[in-house]
Amino acid sequence: MNQTLRINGERLWSRLEEIGQIGATAGGGCNRQALTDEDRDGRALFARWCEAAGCTLRTDAIGNVFARREGTEPNLPPVITGSHLDTQPSGGKYDGIYGVLAGLEVIESLNEAGIRTRHPLEVVVWTNEEGCRFDTAMMGSAVWSGVMPIEDAYALTDRDGASVRDELLRTGQLGSEPATASPIHAAFELHIEQGPVLEAEALSIGVVTGVQHMSRHRVIYYGQEAHAGPTPMTLRKDPMMALGQCLPRLYTMAEEHGADSRITFGFVHASPGSSNTVPGKLEFTVDIRHPEASHYQAMLTSYEEIIQDAAKQFGLDMEFECFWEAPGVTFDTDCVAAVQKAVDTLGYSHRRMVSGAGHDACNVAKVAPTSMIFIPCKDGLSHNEKEAVIAADVTAGANILLNAMATRAEVVA
Amino acid sequence: MNQTLRINGERLWSRLEEIGQIGATAGGGCNRQALTDEDRDGRALFARWCEAAGCTLRTDAIGNVFARREGTEPNLPPVITGSHLDTQPSGGKYDGIYGVLAGLEVIESLNEAGIRTRHPLEVVVWTNEEGCRFDTAMMGSAVWSGVMPIEDAYALTDRDGASVRDELLRTGQLGSEPATASPIHAAFELHIEQGPVLEAEALSIGVVTGVQHMSRHRVIYYGQEAHAGPTPMTLRKDPMMALGQCLPRLYTMAEEHGADSRITFGFVHASPGSSNTVPGKLEFTVDIRHPEASHYQAMLTSYEEIIQDAAKQFGLDMEFECFWEAPGVTFDTDCVAAVQKAVDTLGYSHRRMVSGAGHDACNVAKVAPTSMIFIPCKDGLSHNEKEAVIAADVTAGANILLNAMATRAEVVA
Repeated sequence: MNQTLRINGERLWSRLEEIGQIGATAGGGCNRQALTDEDRDGRALFARWCEAAGCTLRTDAIGNVFARREGTEPNLPPVITGSHLDTQPSGGKYDGIYGVLAGLEVIESLNEAGIRTRHPLEVVVWTNEEGCRFDTAMMGSAVWSGVMPIEDAYALTDRDGASVRDELLRTGQLGSEPATASPIHAAFELHIEQGPVLEAEALSIGVVTGVQHMSRHRVIYYGQEAHAGPTPMTLRKDPMMALGQCLPRLYTMAEEHGADSRITFGFVHASPGSSNTVPGKLEFTVDIRHPEASHYQAMLTSYEEIIQDAAKQFGLDMEFECFWEAPGVTFDTDCVAAVQKAVDTLGYSHRRMVSGAGHDACNVAKVAPTSMIFIPCKDGLSHNEKEAVIAADVTAGANILLNAMATRAEVVA
Repeated sequence: MNQTLRINGERLWSRLEEIGQIGATAGGGCNRQALTDEDRDGRALFARWCEAAGCTLRTDAIGNVFARREGTEPNLPPVITGSHLDTQPSGGKYDGIYGVLAGLEVIESLNEAGIRTRHPLEVVVWTNEEGCRFDTAMMGSAVWSGVMPIEDAYALTDRDGASVRDELLRTGQLGSEPATASPIHAAFELHIEQGPVLEAEALSIGVVTGVQHMSRHRVIYYGQEAHAGPTPMTLRKDPMMALGQCLPRLYTMAEEHGADSRITFGFVHASPGSSNTVPGKLEFTVDIRHPEASHYQAMLTSYEEIIQDAAKQFGLDMEFECFWEAPGVTFDTDCVAAVQKAVDTLGYSHRRMVSGAGHDACNVAKVAPTSMIFIPCKDGLSHNEKEAVIAADVTAGANILLNAMATRAEVVA
C-alpha cells in the first residue's frame, strides 16, 4: 500500500463535542462515571454512530462493547483499537473518548475511501477504565484479558453499595458474549498524553513503547477519638500527627528516585470529621509509579517503612494494603513499528516515550500484540475539567491510527 | 443553712442509662446530633421527667428548654443550671447530658426533702452545643446571651443543606419564648472534665475558675487536578504537599507554647478524592487553644504564617477563615465560692482548674454570675463512644451542684 490515508478531522472533532455534552460539567469538563445513566447514554450515542457506519455490535458479560467492520477474510483475527467512554468525577472530554471515536473514524474513512482490509477491524469500548466509582482501574479490559476474575469485578461496589453487576444490569450493559479474549492480530490505543512532555517539546505524536510500573495503596491509621480542648498533646493518639510525619518523608523519598518517579495522595478522610474531635481514624490512598523496575520496587519498600514508622512513633494501630498494581509493560515491536512507519510517512513531529499512566492497552498487551499512540494535551492536564487538545493534533493522531491499523490489517489492493 | 443536702445517685445513674438508649451506638456511645429525630426524642423524655417533678416548661425561639421550680419569691431572678442533650456523631453518654439530668435531680431532691428556696430554680437544655451537625458550637446559649444574632443561627445548614430553622420546625423545638437572657441570679454548669487531669490526680471534683481561649479555623488549599501518572512532581500544584509541610510545623509550633497548648485537625477532605488524581482542592479544620491570652494570640499569628508559607512554597491559591472563636472566661467569684464551700462541706477531694473545653457556661457568663463543676472521666476520653464515668463521682458532682445552687438560691428556713 503506497496510498496515504486521511481521516475526516472535522467530523471527529464535532463528535467529541457532541458526546461531551453527556455528563457535561459547569467547568467545561465531563462527569460520566462508569455504569451511571450518563455512561449508558454515551455508549448509546456511540452505538448509533457505529450502526450508521455499518458496524455490527456485540457486548460482553462485563459490558465491553465491540463494533466490527468485516474483513475480506472474516476468519482472520481482527485488528482492534479501543479505549473508554467513562470519565473521572470532574474529568475531561478527551481522556479515553478520543481513542474510541478515532477508531470509529478509521472505519468510516475506510468506508468512504472504498478500501477493504483482509483482517476485520474492531473498535472496543472498555468498561470502567477510570476505576473511580468502582475502585479498580481498567476493569473491563482486565476481565477480558484474564487478569481479573469476572466474579471479583461483579462484586465491586461504589460508595453507596451498588455493585458492578447491579449497575451493568440496571444500565442494560450486561451482554451475552463471554468476557474473554479471542485471538487478536494487532491492537492499538490512541490517547491524549495526560502529561506535559509532548507539549513542552512542541511535538504532535508520541510513539509509545511501554508503560511505567504503578500501584495504588490504602493506608488507615487508627487513633483515639478525644476532645480537642482538654486532652494534652502528649496523651493523644492522633492519626494526623502520623500523616504530618509521613507525608513529607514520602514526597522526599519519591524525589530521591529521580524525575520519573511519581507519588500521589488523591484521597484523604478523617473520621468522625468534627473540628473539635481528635480523629479516631484517618484513611488515605497512595499512588506510586516509576518506569524502571528497580526504582519502583525500592519505592514500595521505602513507602512501607515510612508509613509503619509513623504509626509506631505515635502509638497508632494501622492497616495498609495494595489494592491495585500494574507492572510495567513493553509494547509489541511490530505494532510500534507500524506506528513509527505511519509517523514517518505522514511526516508529523514526534518522539518515542513511555506512558506515565495506565491504559487498557496494558491489559490487552497480555493477550495480543499491542502499542499506543499519544497526542499532546494542553498544560499536560488530564483528570481535570480543563483538559484540552488542539484540533490539528486530534486529526494527526487519528491519521496515525488509521495508517497503522491499515498496515496491520492489510489493505486489499 | 447548716443542713447538708444529698441527691439520689441511683435515680440519676439509671436515667443517664435510659436517655443513653436514644441514639445508642453499637460501640456503647451515643449519636444524638442537634435537632435530629434522636435529639427530639431525648428532649421529650427529659420533658416528661420534668413534668412529673412538677416543673413548668418553656421553649425559646432557638429551641433552648427551661424547666422551672418556683421560688417562694417568684419575682426574684432564678438560679439556673444547664448543659446540653445533643452529642457528637460518635459521642458518649455523659458529655452535656450529665449536667442536665443532675439539674433535674437537684429539683427532685429538694422536692423530696420538702425544701423551698427564695429564688426560683431552672434547668436549661441549650440547643446545639456540639456544633458538629451545624457548625457553631454552643449555638443556643450564644443566641440567648446575645453573642450570636438569631437569624445567623437560623441560617446555619448541615451538610445536606437543612437549616437550623427548618430543623427546629420539623422537630417541634421552635418555641414561642424570645431567645434572650432575662435576669439571672446565679448560674452553674456541671460537666465531665473531658480531660485526664482529675483522674490522673485521683480527685473527685474540679472547682472550675475559668475557660481557656479557643478558636476554630478552616483552611482551603487550591491545587490543580492532574493525572497521577504522567505529571512530573515538579510541575504539580498539589495541596497535599502543602499539608505535608504545614502539619509538622503546626504541631511543633503548638509544642513550643508549652503543655497547656492544643492544636487539632478534626476534618480533612481532598477533592475530587480519586486515588489517581492530584487533588484540586484540600479542606481542613484547625482548632487552636491556650489558657493564657499572650500564648494564644502568638499561636494564632504563627498559625497564619505557617499555612500561608506552605501555600506560597507550592504555588497554591488558598482561603482561610476563623469560623468560631471563644475568648477565655474568668468565672464569677461568688459562684466559685459557692462551689468551693460545697466541696469543703461535703469533704470531696478536689482541685481548682481551668477548663480546656468550651461550654455553654462561657456564653452564660457574659450575662450572669456563673461557674462550673467538673467530675473525672475515664482516661480523659470524651467525644468518644468509650466515654465513661464512675457512679460515686456522678453522685459527688450532683451533690456539689445541689448544695451550691441551694446556697445561692437561699433555702427558706
